[in-house]
Order: sequence, then C-alpha cells, then structure tokens
Amino acid sequence: MAQAAAHKFINEIGPGEVVNGVYVVREPILRSTTRGDLYIAMFLCDRTGQLNARMWQATEAIYKALPKPGFVHVQGRSELYQNNLQVVVNNVATIDPGKVVVENYLARTPKDCGQMFKEVKDMVGSIRHPQLAAIVHEFLTDEPLMESFCDAPGGMKLHHDCIGGLLEHTHNMLRVAKSILPLYPRVQGDLVLAGVFLHDMGKTEELAYDMAFSYTDSGQLIGHITKSFLMIQRKVDALRARGVTIDEDVVDTLSHIILAHHGSYEFGSPKLPATAEAFMVYYLDDLDAKMDQVTAAIDNELSDTNWTAWQNALQTRLYRKRIS
Amino acid sequence: MAQAAAHKFINEIGPGEVVNGVYVVREPILRSTTRGDLYIAMFLCDRTGQLNARMWQATEAIYKALPKPGFVHVQGRSELYQNNLQVVVNNVATIDPGKVVVENYLARTPKDCGQMFKEVKDMVGSIRHPQLAAIVHEFLTDEPLMESFCDAPGGMKLHHDCIGGLLEHTHNMLRVAKSILPLYPRVQGDLVLAGVFLHDMGKTEELAYDMAFSYTDSGQLIGHITKSFLMIQRKVDALRARGVTIDEDVVDTLSHIILAHHGSYEFGSPKLPATAEAFMVYYLDDLDAKMDQVTAAIDNELSDTNWTAWQNALQTRLYRKRIS
Amino acid sequence: MAQAAAHKFINEIGPGEVVNGVYVVREPILRSTTRGDLYIAMFLCDRTGQLNARMWQATEAIYKALPKPGFVHVQGRSELYQNNLQVVVNNVATIDPGKVVVENYLARTPKDCGQMFKEVKDMVGSIRHPQLAAIVHEFLTDEPLMESFCDAPGGMKLHHDCIGGLLEHTHNMLRVAKSILPLYPRVQGDLVLAGVFLHDMGKTEELAYDMAFSYTDSGQLIGHITKSFLMIQRKVDALRARGVTIDEDVVDTLSHIILAHHGSYEFGSPKLPATAEAFMVYYLDDLDAKMDQVTAAIDNELSDTNWTAWQNALQTRLYRKRIS
Amino acid sequence: MAQAAAHKFINEIGPGEVVNGVYVVREPILRSTTRGDLYIAMFLCDRTGQLNARMWQATEAIYKALPKPGFVHVQGRSELYQNNLQVVVNNVATIDPGKVVVENYLARTPKDCGQMFKEVKDMVGSIRHPQLAAIVHEFLTDEPLMESFCDAPGGMKLHHDCIGGLLEHTHNMLRVAKSILPLYPRVQGDLVLAGVFLHDMGKTEELAYDMAFSYTDSGQLIGHITKSFLMIQRKVDALRARGVTIDEDVVDTLSHIILAHHGSYEFGSPKLPATAEAFMVYYLDDLDAKMDQVTAAIDNELSDTNWTAWQNALQTRLYRKRIS
Amino acid sequence: MAQAAAHKFINEIGPGEVVNGVYVVREPILRSTTRGDLYIAMFLCDRTGQLNARMWQATEAIYKALPKPGFVHVQGRSELYQNNLQVVVNNVATIDPGKVVVENYLARTPKDCGQMFKEVKDMVGSIRHPQLAAIVHEFLTDEPLMESFCDAPGGMKLHHDCIGGLLEHTHNMLRVAKSILPLYPRVQGDLVLAGVFLHDMGKTEELAYDMAFSYTDSGQLIGHITKSFLMIQRKVDALRARGVTIDEDVVDTLSHIILAHHGSYEFGSPKLPATAEAFMVYYLDDLDAKMDQVTAAIDNELSDTNWTAWQNALQTRLYRKRIS
Amino acid sequence: MAQAAAHKFINEIGPGEVVNGVYVVREPILRSTTRGDLYIAMFLCDRTGQLNARMWQATEAIYKALPKPGFVHVQGRSELYQNNLQVVVNNVATIDPGKVVVENYLARTPKDCGQMFKEVKDMVGSIRHPQLAAIVHEFLTDEPLMESFCDAPGGMKLHHDCIGGLLEHTHNMLRVAKSILPLYPRVQGDLVLAGVFLHDMGKTEELAYDMAFSYTDSGQLIGHITKSFLMIQRKVDALRARGVTIDEDVVDTLSHIILAHHGSYEFGSPKLPATAEAFMVYYLDDLDAKMDQVTAAIDNELSDTNWTAWQNALQTRLYRKRIS
Repeated sequence: MAQAAAHKFINEIGPGEVVNGVYVVREPILRSTTRGDLYIAMFLCDRTGQLNARMWQATEAIYKALPKPGFVHVQGRSELYQNNLQVVVNNVATIDPGKVVVENYLARTPKDCGQMFKEVKDMVGSIRHPQLAAIVHEFLTDEPLMESFCDAPGGMKLHHDCIGGLLEHTHNMLRVAKSILPLYPRVQGDLVLAGVFLHDMGKTEELAYDMAFSYTDSGQLIGHITKSFLMIQRKVDALRARGVTIDEDVVDTLSHIILAHHGSYEFGSPKLPATAEAFMVYYLDDLDAKMDQVTAAIDNELSDTNWTAWQNALQTRLYRKRIS
Repeated sequence: MAQAAAHKFINEIGPGEVVNGVYVVREPILRSTTRGDLYIAMFLCDRTGQLNARMWQATEAIYKALPKPGFVHVQGRSELYQNNLQVVVNNVATIDPGKVVVENYLARTPKDCGQMFKEVKDMVGSIRHPQLAAIVHEFLTDEPLMESFCDAPGGMKLHHDCIGGLLEHTHNMLRVAKSILPLYPRVQGDLVLAGVFLHDMGKTEELAYDMAFSYTDSGQLIGHITKSFLMIQRKVDALRARGVTIDEDVVDTLSHIILAHHGSYEFGSPKLPATAEAFMVYYLDDLDAKMDQVTAAIDNELSDTNWTAWQNALQTRLYRKRIS
Repeated sequence: MAQAAAHKFINEIGPGEVVNGVYVVREPILRSTTRGDLYIAMFLCDRTGQLNARMWQATEAIYKALPKPGFVHVQGRSELYQNNLQVVVNNVATIDPGKVVVENYLARTPKDCGQMFKEVKDMVGSIRHPQLAAIVHEFLTDEPLMESFCDAPGGMKLHHDCIGGLLEHTHNMLRVAKSILPLYPRVQGDLVLAGVFLHDMGKTEELAYDMAFSYTDSGQLIGHITKSFLMIQRKVDALRARGVTIDEDVVDTLSHIILAHHGSYEFGSPKLPATAEAFMVYYLDDLDAKMDQVTAAIDNELSDTNWTAWQNALQTRLYRKRIS
Repeated sequence: MAQAAAHKFINEIGPGEVVNGVYVVREPILRSTTRGDLYIAMFLCDRTGQLNARMWQATEAIYKALPKPGFVHVQGRSELYQNNLQVVVNNVATIDPGKVVVENYLARTPKDCGQMFKEVKDMVGSIRHPQLAAIVHEFLTDEPLMESFCDAPGGMKLHHDCIGGLLEHTHNMLRVAKSILPLYPRVQGDLVLAGVFLHDMGKTEELAYDMAFSYTDSGQLIGHITKSFLMIQRKVDALRARGVTIDEDVVDTLSHIILAHHGSYEFGSPKLPATAEAFMVYYLDDLDAKMDQVTAAIDNELSDTNWTAWQNALQTRLYRKRIS
Repeated sequence: MAQAAAHKFINEIGPGEVVNGVYVVREPILRSTTRGDLYIAMFLCDRTGQLNARMWQATEAIYKALPKPGFVHVQGRSELYQNNLQVVVNNVATIDPGKVVVENYLARTPKDCGQMFKEVKDMVGSIRHPQLAAIVHEFLTDEPLMESFCDAPGGMKLHHDCIGGLLEHTHNMLRVAKSILPLYPRVQGDLVLAGVFLHDMGKTEELAYDMAFSYTDSGQLIGHITKSFLMIQRKVDALRARGVTIDEDVVDTLSHIILAHHGSYEFGSPKLPATAEAFMVYYLDDLDAKMDQVTAAIDNELSDTNWTAWQNALQTRLYRKRIS
Repeated sequence: MAQAAAHKFINEIGPGEVVNGVYVVREPILRSTTRGDLYIAMFLCDRTGQLNARMWQATEAIYKALPKPGFVHVQGRSELYQNNLQVVVNNVATIDPGKVVVENYLARTPKDCGQMFKEVKDMVGSIRHPQLAAIVHEFLTDEPLMESFCDAPGGMKLHHDCIGGLLEHTHNMLRVAKSILPLYPRVQGDLVLAGVFLHDMGKTEELAYDMAFSYTDSGQLIGHITKSFLMIQRKVDALRARGVTIDEDVVDTLSHIILAHHGSYEFGSPKLPATAEAFMVYYLDDLDAKMDQVTAAIDNELSDTNWTAWQNALQTRLYRKRIS
C-alpha cells in the first residue's frame, strides 16, 4: 500500500512534470523522423487512463526489448504538444510483472472472489433438471475456464469494469434470481439459473485483462453473445461424445436465453426474448448492470453537488442526494 | 356458475343464430333511416368482445330507457351485414345489475384480494422513513381509494387486465422488491416500497371497469402517470395542512419514481430514471408485467403447436414447450 | 401437368363450393363441443394459402390416423363462419406422398438445380487460400447437408421462397461476386467467396420445407445467422480433429462475415460489418434479395395497372412499366 | 455601462493573464492535498461561461465565508493545467450583490417587461369562458408567481435564455394566437389563450436564475411540464375551496394542452395532442421557439460567412444571407 | 340535389342488393375463365369508396367500349365472394360525363373558389421584392396552371382531400402568414408569402382528380416537392429567357423553402430547414394541415361518444367534446 | 515535388514554431480591438487541415488586398491561445496560383482521369435506348460540365474526397454495373447505366473545390440530388427544343433513379426506390462508397494495431489484418 501510494497516476500528471515510475506500455512503434533519426511512439497506461509518449534518439535494440504490451519503468518529462499532453521518455526498462502493484493498473472488485464463486457453485448446484445440471457441471469442472470466469471483468466501461467483475455480476444476478423465482412459479427456475450462470461466459474470451482492459480481436469480430452460445454447444458436444443424452430442445431453450439476453436487436441480440425465462434473465441482467452503473457514477462523482455529471449512456444526470 | 354456463359469449356467436341473453349495451344512438323511421345503433358486449347491433322500429321511449352503458336482456338474431356480424335486436330490457353474473362481463383475478391487500399493507408497513410512512399511511386510510385500488384492472390489454389486476400487480412487485432489496444495500428500500405501492395508483382514475374495461375521458386526456403524481401531491398537501412536515426533496424523489417508471420517453415517461430507486421500480414493473403477459399469451393460445400466435407488442411469437 | 391443372387451389375456393382434392393437413386438434361431441379442427394448405377446416362427428380413430402434418384427400364443402371461409370436412383419408403432385404444395425454382450446384462448386473451387479451401471442402463433401442446401428455400416470404431458392440465391451471389471482385483488388476475394457460400447455410436448419414452408422450433429459437456460424465452428472442429491447421483469425474473419451479413443490428446481425469483405457480402446479399423480391412482386401483380399493390416490406408500390 | 465595459468576461480570458474582477463562485469545495495542505476548488462564472479555479493555501475560514453560490471579487492569474485553462486565486472576497452590474452575469431581454406583462394581461383578459377566466385570474393575482413569471428565462440554452425570456416567449405566442384564431373558427380560442399563458408556467420552478441559469433539483426530478400541470390543479383546488365551480372536463382539457405541448413522447410529453387546441399550442410554441433560436444563432455567429456554425439541435447550419 | 340523393353510395351497399346507378369504372380487365369464357374484372367507385365487380359473359366489344376510367351506368347485384363484397354486373353503359352529378364522385370544398383565388392574388400581390414578385406573377399568369391550382385536391387522404383543397389550404396559410409576419419582423415576409404560394404547386401534377383522386405515375416517381421545385426553375428560365434578371440566391432561397417544407428527412424533405423562412412555412403548413385533419376526423366520426376512432396518422384518438 | 516536400503541412505545426510558407487564406475578417487597433482574423488551410490566424497591427489596405479565399505566402509564428493553436501572422502576401503546388492544398485521385473518362464514355456509349442515349449524349457534349465532372470530388469527407473523386466513383460503379447486368436479365441495363452516369452529377455544383473542398451556398440550400435531377430536366428541355422526342415516362423513370439513390428518407432521398433499376443503382453506389471508405480508413490508420480508430459513420472500428 505504501508502494501504491507512491505511484503517480496518469490522470494526476500535469504539463512540465517529472515522470518516474512504472506504467504499462502499449502499441510501441519504431519510426524515423524526416531527418532519418529513429524514435519510438507508444502509450503509457495505468488504471486511470493513458498518455501518448515519445522516446527520441531511440535504437532498434531499445524497441525490440520493449514488451508489447507490458510493464516498464519510465523516466522522462511531461509536456504539451499540439495541445495534448505527452511524455518525452529518456529511459525505459522492462519490469518483472511479479514486482508490480497490479492494483495500480487494473481495478479489482473489493468483494471476496473465493467466497462468491463458492456461492455461485452452491446456487447452480440447486438445479434439478438432469441435463441442465450436466451442462452446468461441465462448465464448473473446466478449471482454466472457471479461473478466467473468476478474473474477467464484467464489462469495458459501463458496469463491473474490474477484475472479478464478471463473477460479481453473475453472483449477484443468481442471488436475485434465487430470491424471486418462488414468486414466479410458472417460470422454469432451472433454466433461469443455468441461463444466468452462462449468459456472459463468452466475456472470458471477448475481453483481455492482463495489464489493461481491452477487447480481443476475436471478441470484437464475434462478440460475447455468440461466444457464450458457442461455449454451450461445445460443452454439449463433449457431453454427447461421452454418451450423455442432451435433448436438442434443452440446448435450444438454454441457448435462446443467451442469444436474447440483451433484450432487443438494437443492443446486439440476434433474437428477441420468446420465453418467460429469456425475459427474466434479460431483466435481471439489465437491473444488476444499471444498479452497478448508477452506484459507480454516484461514487465517482468528484463535485459536491446533488447531481453527477451527464451520463451519456443513460441520457441524464443522476441525483445523488439521499433522503434523510 | 350454472347460470354462467348458460351465457352465450360474444365470441361464440355465429351468423344466423338466435340471441337471447344478458349483455352490456354501450354507446346506443338513436337515428332515423332515409325514410324517416327511427332505429337504435348500439354495441353489445361481454368479456369476450363486442358486436354491432341494430334495433329497427325503435321509439324514443325505448332509447331513453336504455342504460348508457348498462346491462340489458336482448332478444334478437345475428346476421352478416356488409361482411360483418351484427345483431338485429327485437327486444331489449334493462336488467338489475344485482342479478347479473358479473364474471361473464368482467374477468377477475383468481387470487384472494383480501389476502393480497393485507399483505400489501404489511409490506409497506415496514417503511421506516417517517415522512414516507406518513404519505403511504395517508393512502391506506383513504377507504374509497383503497376500494378502487383493490378492484381496478392493471391494464387494458397487455397485462393484468382483470378486476383486481392492479392489486395483484402491485402486490407481486412489492414481494419481489422485498426479496431483492437486501441484495442491493445501497438502494433506499423505503423509497422503492413507497414507489411500487403508488406507481400505478392513478389507474384507479384512468380506467373505468364497472361493466367493461375502458379509459375514462380524464384518463385519456391526462394519463395514469400524471394522475398518480397528482394524487401524491394532494395527499402531501393534506398532511401539511394538518401540520405534518413533509420535506420537498422527499416528495420530489418519490414523485420522480412515478414519473420515470415507464423507463423511456417513448413509453410516455416525461422523465428518465435518475436515481437507483427509479431504475429499480422501472425494472420490477416491466418484469412483472412481462411475466404476466407471457404467461397469459401462452395460456390463452388455442392451437396445440409449440408456439403462440404472433404477439405484436413483443414482436415475436412465444415458445410454449417446457423442457421435460 | 394434367393432374396439376385439376387441383383446386386454396385461393380459388369461394363460399358454398364442393371441396374434393388433396391438401396438406396441419395442426389437427381433437376437441369436444359443449354437448360432448368430438370434432377435429385443422388447417388445409397448398402453396397458395391455408383455410380453417372442421370435421364434425369425428372419432379418436380418425384423429389418430391423420398425419400431423401430411397429405390427405379431403371431401367436404366450403362455407362462411363468423365472417371467415372454412371447410366442413365430411371425409378425410391419408394419401401416399409419392402419388402427390408436390409442385401444387411447394413452389420450386424454375432453374436447373444440378447445373447451379455444379457451378457453385466450380466457383468456390477457385478459392486459393488453403485453410478457407479446406473449410469449404468440408461443407461440399457433407452430402446430406449439400442435399438440404440444394432443396432449402431462400426465405419464408420476401425472396426466393421456393424449393431450391437457397441454392439459386447463393449461386447468383457467387456469380456477382466473381464478376466484381476484379474491380475491387483490395478486397480478399477468397473470403468473399467463402462468406457468400456459407452466409445462409443455417437456413437448411432454420426452415422446414417438406410439405409447406415453416420455421423449425430450433430455427425460431436460434436463427439462421447463429446456426450458420455454428456449422462453420463444427466443420473447423472436425478439420482440426483430423490434424488440419486452421488459424483462429481465419475462422473469426470468416465467421464475422456471417454474423454481420444483415448489415445492422435492426435486422438481427449481432455484429456490424468491420471488414471490406463483410460489407461486400452484405451488399451482394441485399442486392440479390431485392432484385428477386422486386421481380416477383411485379410478376405476381394481378392488375393491369402500372403499379403493383403496396409492398409493406419496401414501404412503396413498385412501378411495373418498362421504357419502350 | 462604463462599469460593465470594465468587466473582463470569462470567454475573453487567455492563459497567463491577471484576473481581477467580480464573478459568481459556484460549487466551492474544501480539499486537502496529499501533503495535507487545504485548498479550495470552485467555478468562476459570468454570462459568457465558467472556469475552474483553485485557491491554494486556503483555510476553513475562507471556505466558510464563501457564498455557495454568490458574487465574489477575485484576484489571481489564469494558467493552463492539464490542457485546460484554470484560475489560480490569491484573494477572494464576498461582494454585496446590490453593487454588482447584474447584466454581466445574466442576460436580460431587451424588451420592456412591464409593457409585455400588461399586454399579456390584456390578451388573456379577453377570455370569455367564465371558468377558464377564473383559473387565469387566479394566476394573475398570485403576485409572487407573476413576479417570477416576468423574471424567469424561457429556457436553458436553445431559446429565450435570458431574464424575462419566459414572459417574452409567452407574450409573443399570445400575440400570434390572437392574430390567427379568427382564421380557425372551429378552434376554441379561450382554451388556446389559457393554454398558451400557462404552458410553461412551471419553468418558474424548474429553472433557477438568481446568479446564473441552472435547473433546480426539483426541476430536474419533476420537469416543467408536470410542474405547470400541478400549478393548475392547485389553483383549481383553491378556487373550488372558495366555492367556485370548475368542471372537471374544463380542467382536463386545459391540462391536456400543457401535457401535450411538446408534441411527441420523444420530447418529453406524456400525452400526444388529442384536441385541435393542443395541436395549435404545440405548433405556436415550436414556431416561436425556432424563430428565436434561428435569429439568435444568426446574430451570434462571429464569422462573416453566409452560414452559421453547425447547429446540433437543428442538424444543419443556418443560412444568414438575406435576399437584397 | 334531388338527383344526388338518389345515388346509392358505395359504402351503403350491402350483400344481396340490386345495383342500378352511375359509378366510375376503373382498371377494367378482359379475362377468360378456365373454360374459355370471357369476363371483365373492374372496380366501381364513387367518393365513398370502391368495390370489385365482375361482368360474366362479356365480349371484347363491351370491353373496348368501356371508358378506362370513366362514368358508366351499371345494372347488377351485390354478393359476397370469398368474404368480400363484389358486384355482378349484368349491364354496363357509358354515360356522358356532362350529365353526371360530379359531387357524388369527387368531394368539393364548400368554400367559394373564385373568392379564395382572388384573395390569394391580393395577398401575394403585396410582395415588394421585384424578383420574387416577377416569379409569382409568372405563375399567376399561367392560366392552365392556375385552373389546375384552383381545382386540385390538397392531399390524398389526410387533409384537404377535396376538389379545391389545394387552393383552400394555400389560401388559409397565406392568411395566417399575413397575420403573423408583423410579429416576426426579422423574417423576410416576401419570401414566406412566395414560399407558401408555391410550396405545394407540384400537387397539380402529382395528383389526378378528374373522376377520382389518385396519384399520377409521374407523381409517384417524382413527388410533389421535386415537381414544385422544378416548376419554379422553369418559370425562372422563362423569365431569364425574356431578359428578366433573377439572382441565383433568390431562386435558391425560395427553392430551399419548397425542398424543406416537410420539416424532416423522415417525411420526404431532401433538405432540413436552414432559414427562418423555411421554418415558418413548415410550421404554417403543418399547423393548417393538422387543423383540417383534426376537424375532419371529429366531423366524420359517426358514434356519439366523446372520442373519435383511433387516428393512425396521429397515434391517438381525438377528443370531440367542447367545453360548454 | 522537391518544392512540395518543403511545404510544412498544417497538421505538422506544433506550438512555438516559425511559419513561413504558402497556405490558403479563408474567411478573413477585419476587426478592431477594445483599444481601437485593427487586426485581421482568418483561417490558414492546406489539405491536412486549417488553423486560426491573427494579424495584429493590420491595415485596411492589407485586408483589402487579401484574396477571399486564395493563396498567400505567410510569415509568422504558432502559439497556444486559450488552449488552441493559432498562427500570429507578421507578413502576408498574395501568391500567383499558377506558381503553387496545388496538390499540397487539394488531394487528387492517383488514377488517370483521361483514361477513366474515356472508359466512362465507352461504357455509356453502349446504351441502345435512343432517348436515353440522346440524354446521355447531351451531357457528354457539354464540355464545361464534363470538365467539372472530371475534376469534382466524390464527397466531402466519407469517400472519394479528392480531385477526380466523382469521376473515379462513377467510373467504378459503371464497371461494376456492366459486369453484373448480364446476371440480372430482367433489369433494364440502359436505365442503370444512364442512372449511374448521372446519379451524382449535381455534385459538380454542390461542391466547391478550387482551393479547398467546401459546399457552395447553392449546394447547401438545394443538395446534389435535386441538382442532378434539375440537370436532367434542363438537358431534356434542350433536346425537346431541338425537336428530339423524349417521352415523359423515360424522363420520370430516369429521374426516379436519381431521386431514390440514397435508398431511404433518412439519408435525404425524397423518394424510396420503386423500380429494380433504382434499387440496383442505390446498392452499387453504397457498395462502391463503402469500399472506398473502408479502404481509406485502413490505409490512413497511423497505429500498428489490428484495428483502426473508431469510425463514427460506420459505428465500429475496422479490422485491418489480412488473412495470410
């Protein structure tokens, strides 16, 4: 923590300041000036943002030694160039990731991931439908995937954008589902629980989050909805290959929940909800995301006024004052 | 019940049949033919639909005696006219509403309204914020209003369109709210409970439902959102007139939930949700309405196929098959 | 053809006519009247439409013997009931599908499917990229799938809604692609050809077309875009299982074309086009579909005026007069 | 005026300049640096814009003495910080608002408000319908409200955004209504005049305008449409409490004009116009607002070209050249 | 008038009635039955609607003698066929149009067209800008065009759909413009008056209205906005050919009003309003059209209720009750 | 070329640099400071962008001597002012446009315009319909217009925004049309070829491109769609004046293609496509534009990542990696 306090965050750097600390370097490019001198253009990042940086009098050796991306210790100075703040780098050295206070670079949920995952397992463990239980079990026993599931962020910007965010979001949705399913006895609870557990599973492949949050190429080309769908098909293929019977309509009904969970074409769902279970997962997802988004916007507001800044995704400012 | 079985429902009448039973007459008009003979045009209705009807050789006395609207015993015959089924009425006599099997004309929730209202009172009774509690209490002690609240339908067509539907919808939303509020500790639960209780209160004035469901003039001109808002203001005025302190921000925050509970301008909300509580009431309302709508569409489907007819409001057909 | 001429098409039946011919029966239901008599409700169809039908004095044996759906010889009479034409069936007997003039029930492309499929194979045979060629080859050698590919309709209503329509549409798009690719040298032609070949492959599973065109349950829950995507993944899995190297970015780039080929979220694409190849397939698909739709609307117009009836999907009437 | 000329407007301050003048301070916050020193963050405003400001080496006494918001005399210097202009404040002292040239901080309509208000009273004085006349009279005799009505701005940004703007807008709409009502004899002129007079009355509560234009909390949570509606209800309640008969349909029809005057859900009306009078008020409001907005954009354009800058709210640039 | 009363209007014909009167025949087609007999399919119309008709045992001579379209005396009988009312024609004879009560076939404005046109001339005669005055004069002296201008309908369905409707609409808009222009002194009144006069002039070519209202082929392909634009260009060409100077910016500014007068792309304007004058003409057009549309819907409502039927173009029902 | 290399492009100028070179001056304005000194505000532009500039101690003589707009040699210095880069000009002198390397100020297509125009003539020379051929010939022999056609840009920002861009776009669309027309034999090829040739002809009048790309006043008021339409009418008028017969339906059908070629109201087409030919031109136009836009975005991307920056007009980033 003492070390963390010493880190100068990107959003704290003003013009004309000394820069001397560890940052993530991204997209370094080796270029030559019109006079033929080599220089390196790159981004320096931490969890608060990123800055353009230039290292003049660079060499190919320096360039090759740079991680792409990775942690580096940077020495240099900030300045304004064409109206934008940039860092002129004098020295750059690769850093052992093991020695880095990773929380400076990636936010992490404050909740206990081990405990949350245990509760997730308990909640989906209540599924009684044998085929759905088998599909869910196939996921739970895929250890590398479950590790990713516990680490992945829930999103890029709007909600649960932290390490563990996907788990936190899924965990909370499952708790909500468990608590309201008794009030909707016509709804097939096992389908809802399995649907909630798997609805965003593709985000483990859509998002990269080792040093900074970003989309993977595959994530941008395919999207997490289709990736989640594919994961289910593959697990079902594996089960069937081992002789387990999984009915086609079970797979289709479960897959439909995943495909429809954004609720409208406009938000990237290729199918509109056509079952009570698909509607329920859509509403629980949206509710939980909005609760996190609203709470985060209110918490992150820096001013002391009763209202947050304009929230573009919500088309409003948010009222922060609580009734006393 | 034996009597109810004897009623021939509007949607069971074919062309060329004898009509002899009790129906609701609506919008009777006295007109004269080109030859100067008087006749009465009217609608005959029950809970399954309505038909045009004509009584030829009518008199002004008959017309004046007709309830507008009301229950009448009709004798006549059905026929096709210009491609539409209509009833030619020979005799029409006003009927004592007390002798009518009202369930033939207005559907009623199968649930126990007394029990539901008791539970509603218990749930909103848990509100600890004294000003909100006072406002809610002001509503609960308005007996004529609470009677209407227990009788009013929840909507015209899409969901809870039955006597007691508003109570059923509010009751269920309150149960859902109570069960998930502990999972969102940042949300001000008292506001959500009060908001849910009052969100559709204006439907008691927007909808008429003595003999058939329809909008009141005032309901169509003003709408239930604005009417619910006004009811709160009036109750607050009454409290203040009695010396009870109600802070303006409490009224505004509660009113905002009502004004924003349709979630978007497109659906008639004059304000977008700007608090976590307003978002939560919006989602719980939409979730509960959709669960009812989907269930009803599936239950009312007459064919034996796996899919319902096209649901225009949902832009899809619904899948009826349950996983076995 | 003599036989075909004798068939009385559904859209030629007026009220009060004798019905005596072969139709497809769909969704038969055994019900009982209020007096307890059994009757069968069903639809009778051919390629021009469908009619409600009722068989009174039915027995469970008759009901069980009915194909659901299938071809039957029907004897009865048409009549108006509650403003709608229906058929009162006196006799119904299952018919050997082999003896039926199937063209009366399902329209078929007038083009030579064998020749078209041969040309499709030739055109995609020109793909030089070894991994794309391997994927395409995996499809071409899947005989049951290729049989479905040659039989499936191109759509339900708007374009190529005939047996062989999918092949006709794909064949024509490939010809267009081949002819314009030389004019866009920056576009990766192999990707476009593979993308065109596979873009609607999932329609073989989305649509049923043995006796009448309809959606399969799975088709409605999942959709042909996601089904086409899954087919590609499965073929790639099979290739990799046999040791063939298929790079992830090749699969993703090809899959992206399929996912984006409706061009906008509004039309059910879960991804917007993000490559030149995805844009090209989207335009070629839309162009070919519209050319078929416009031509069909003009050909099917019954009046002699210069304009077709209103085309709801195009939001206009179409001008039929050619410049002379 | 000499004094006004001496004021350095916010939009005239460049980097590195001395700042020495009276500004409105808004949202001051007392914070401590990482070293524990106190400083004050605040905004400095006048009618041309606002700037961030920081006072280092501040004390709690200074902070407490600051108006929040209010007029202060500031001494300091402008500088660029993280690419944004800010003011470093050395000295700040509260100023007696009575000694301030208020026009520097709030724009005011150039028209004669007394004269306009007199004409408004004359025009609505022509209303013959006794109940409407009574409602309007109830507003005209509410002196504090009429004072606000004469001072309030017509809007925040797009039109009539100046002290007296609401009066100017209402006055002009009334003049237009008076002049065209004879051309639409079927329209109930009294309703239109009352509707125009009251349509934006709620802006007196929605907008704050003592030192700078802003929304009140209540304004943002409730909105001026609903506030105008409520004002009418309250005046009617007061009239009825005094024994004056006001029919419900008169209140509803008038209220409907207010609720529908934005013309579409998209622009925040909870009801669509359903009477000729509601349509007319909507068009007159929009026409008058657009005339002001277009004229202002053309007048405020600084360049000498034939076109203004892009007008985002109108999705076009405006043509300034007049035909000669 | 006695004669007019004797006409049986299309919307008064029920099934099984004798048809014996004068109607407009449209789109007659000579066809042959499957047995080779000739028959004629056609529509019979008057101002209340149209019906399908069939003449069996027709001959080519009868077909050739039919006007296409034109007035005919028809003898026959109405019947239901495939659920639709149609007329079986026994005899058909062409009628001299001069002997027809044309008001039965085309509605006509009740106002005095001569008087209205005189007033139009007076109002645009007040234009002082010499070039605009010259353009307007060029139109006023085009006698065949002015005759069409006085006869053409204002629209097809929504407003002013009667002979003289275009004149009535333009006349009223000019009166409104004259009365409010003094209230907007910044607006260039001459441009507004010329723009109003010419805004819909292309409807004289877009709509056909000799026997029934319909679009011309050219009208559907080009549209009245573009046709009005072209008329102005042609008149300017003619003026210039005679040596009259018309500046390009005068033509462009006037043309812009025509191109932008539907107010948004969505309603077919290829340009959005970019001058105060274009905005004003758009609002005056929309206001006048809506006043006519609302008034007509209220007048044409047949029921005695307080509300009209649903108005699809307005997305509401209209309230008919006047405050008393 | 040596000279071109010496030009310092606008987007290469940083703060605090000497500026000494030839730029386009635009919108110069003579103003006076509060102290009464004269200065000139202006923009300096080249093909990479534009900068604000100020010349202090200016005189009316200097101002009058400036071209408005035109080429000038500028001496001065760049600096930051209110967060924006601007140029303080010491000396400015008008330059003979003949001595300027025009490519520095306006980008030019790399393709051979003479060759492209020859091929355009050959392709439209294949039109066999005599009236269409006559219309096209009338354009081809209008030498000043054809010169503009060869020089004009294809657009302002999104595609073909270079000198010769209109020709390049039209040429490529014609080649695509020629190659696919044989695959759509029902489509009237002559109409498509003439439609493609003329679809954007109005851009020669909509866009100005002597020193920098901009809209003409007339272009902004009228738009290129309507201008293209008018050009066709004028050519037809000229042909008819010389006694050549051109049928109205030929002009209308061709004009319809021009009016409908943006494909939807939303994109400024006043008519939706209503013929196969109009649909085809719309798709070919959109396809060719998107291919250019995507290729340009990928080529212009400066980073080395697999994705371009966000493309607002396409609502996505573009994937740049080619499959290897």
